[in-house]
Amino acid sequence: MEFIEELRFLKEQLKFKESVKLPKNFDTVVISGMGGSGIVGMIFQELYSEKPVFLVNDYEIPNFVSKSTLFIAISYSGNTEETLTATKAAIKRGAHVVTISAGGLLAQYGDQHIRIPRGDLQPRSATGYMLMPLLRGFGLVKESEIKESYSLLSALDNDHRECLNHARSIAKSNAIPVIYGSRPFKSVAYRWKTQFNENSKVIGYSSHFPELNHNDTLALAKTYKKKGFYFFVFDSGDKRIKRRIDVTREITNSDFNIIKIKGTNTIPRLFYLIHYCDYISYGLGNLRGVNPAEIVLLERLKQMIKK
Amino acid sequence: MEFIEELRFLKEQLKFKESVKLPKNFDTVVISGMGGSGIVGMIFQELYSEKPVFLVNDYEIPNFVSKSTLFIAISYSGNTEETLTATKAAIKRGAHVVTISAGGLLAQYGDQHIRIPRGDLQPRSATGYMLMPLLRGFGLVKESEIKESYSLLSALDNDHRECLNHARSIAKSNAIPVIYGSRPFKSVAYRWKTQFNENSKVIGYSSHFPELNHNDTLALAKTYKKKGFYFFVFDSGDKRIKRRIDVTREITNSDFNIIKIKGTNTIPRLFYLIHYCDYISYGLGNLRGVNPAEIVLLERLKQMIKK
Repeated sequence: MEFIEELRFLKEQLKFKESVKLPKNFDTVVISGMGGSGIVGMIFQELYSEKPVFLVNDYEIPNFVSKSTLFIAISYSGNTEETLTATKAAIKRGAHVVTISAGGLLAQYGDQHIRIPRGDLQPRSATGYMLMPLLRGFGLVKESEIKESYSLLSALDNDHRECLNHARSIAKSNAIPVIYGSRPFKSVAYRWKTQFNENSKVIGYSSHFPELNHNDTLALAKTYKKKGFYFFVFDSGDKRIKRRIDVTREITNSDFNIIKIKGTNTIPRLFYLIHYCDYISYGLGNLRGVNPAEIVLLERLKQMIKK
Repeated sequence: MEFIEELRFLKEQLKFKESVKLPKNFDTVVISGMGGSGIVGMIFQELYSEKPVFLVNDYEIPNFVSKSTLFIAISYSGNTEETLTATKAAIKRGAHVVTISAGGLLAQYGDQHIRIPRGDLQPRSATGYMLMPLLRGFGLVKESEIKESYSLLSALDNDHRECLNHARSIAKSNAIPVIYGSRPFKSVAYRWKTQFNENSKVIGYSSHFPELNHNDTLALAKTYKKKGFYFFVFDSGDKRIKRRIDVTREITNSDFNIIKIKGTNTIPRLFYLIHYCDYISYGLGNLRGVNPAEIVLLERLKQMIKK
């Protein structure tokens, strides 16, 4: 599958019917995942707050993991070193373990294993496959929302000129992308950062309102190289946050590119926003003459750290 | 108090004897705090994992907050809008509430209120005052560790030439600081980022190993403007992480400034590392001709968003 087809394939993943089966009793959800798999956990943590959701993006698991923990391990390849280490430790503690992967070693573990049907995608192109079982299992998504998401993604696939305009503006000035999110899309801001890293091969960073009003704001007013950054700001529709965005822009004299989010509620808006940057980051990679799909270096790193 | 005296005052805060009193039964710790107060929660989350620690740096609290939640609200001024809103919501849910502030509205709330004795510091200069009650209350610090921390901070106060050398290198090239931490100092990497924002008034960002091996690494190899960044990397002593640092540096051909952390165990090393960047960021601010202490803009923002 060509990488551009992978991007377009996101909408089809919304139809993935597998679902995390919740155990009868659990007091905490721990989600283990790195990079693009870890972001799935971050998104879930913003959407589900009936019980504490704790994220692990390292080898170690917290001491509280026990029989009453629902431990969900996500790794597209199923061979991510950190996630495998953490999962084995969780099993030893007696946690209820659910694994999500397209095969690999992780598929051998878990009270429940959810097999992603296609193993030929880049991990970052499998967000739908990894996220849907959580959204379905925890009752966070309705069929009508999936339909609306599908429509929004299709429309973006057909017309993403707006995204390519952003890519051209960034490429023209060799700018560093900065993404400012806000609730419930803080994790999506981080997803954008990682897409710029992986698809465009450029440095970037993300933060979110209101937190950035306690630190970044001072830098925005007086930093050197301000023109070297390209600021994306999500307009989530929240009035308090909108006021903060407007005031921050005014007092720091910053050029904010406001991203209006299409969709009638959180789930469609989430997918729209994720996909929007797929096209910006892919476009920027192409404009820079790098291969958006290529991740040779990550493979090399995995080999070298084993030595 | 002059700002340089505030920085030197960190070691005296280690002697602060107040302590969070733990309720008989609680299943989760929620810490609410923004900016420099929020970082205290982040540090605590890395050190304590007997029960889930959930961080709130926004107005809203998660749905799971209930009678069995230990809710700790931290705001140096005691008047942080987001923290006050979150605290009032937690009280309505019947949570056991502890507030930490140097006065302000927050001091009126809480089953326990811990009063910080000096209200004339910058919030970011009161890290010791805000952190010690958590370390003491949860049994995370020994007197011998406080003594060692005091010695390390004193030594840095007497000789911080190494820090000023970093500041000069950054200033010479108008570089953007990037800080790569790792466990248990991921939160300190974020602290460094915010100190560069506030004391030096420059943009900066932080990430951590091993997570950055899944995204940033690809950017490090091929990004434009690489020479415009100044990379700090914490060497925590962990062998697996050290291997990742070495391999990442090699395959991306990056100029990493490795920070060796003094101290015999986590608590002294934590304070050493925090204080180390106090001097870099303060030095960089001075070299740039900005006032490291000045936060007029944050005050103006607070006024304007109320309108």
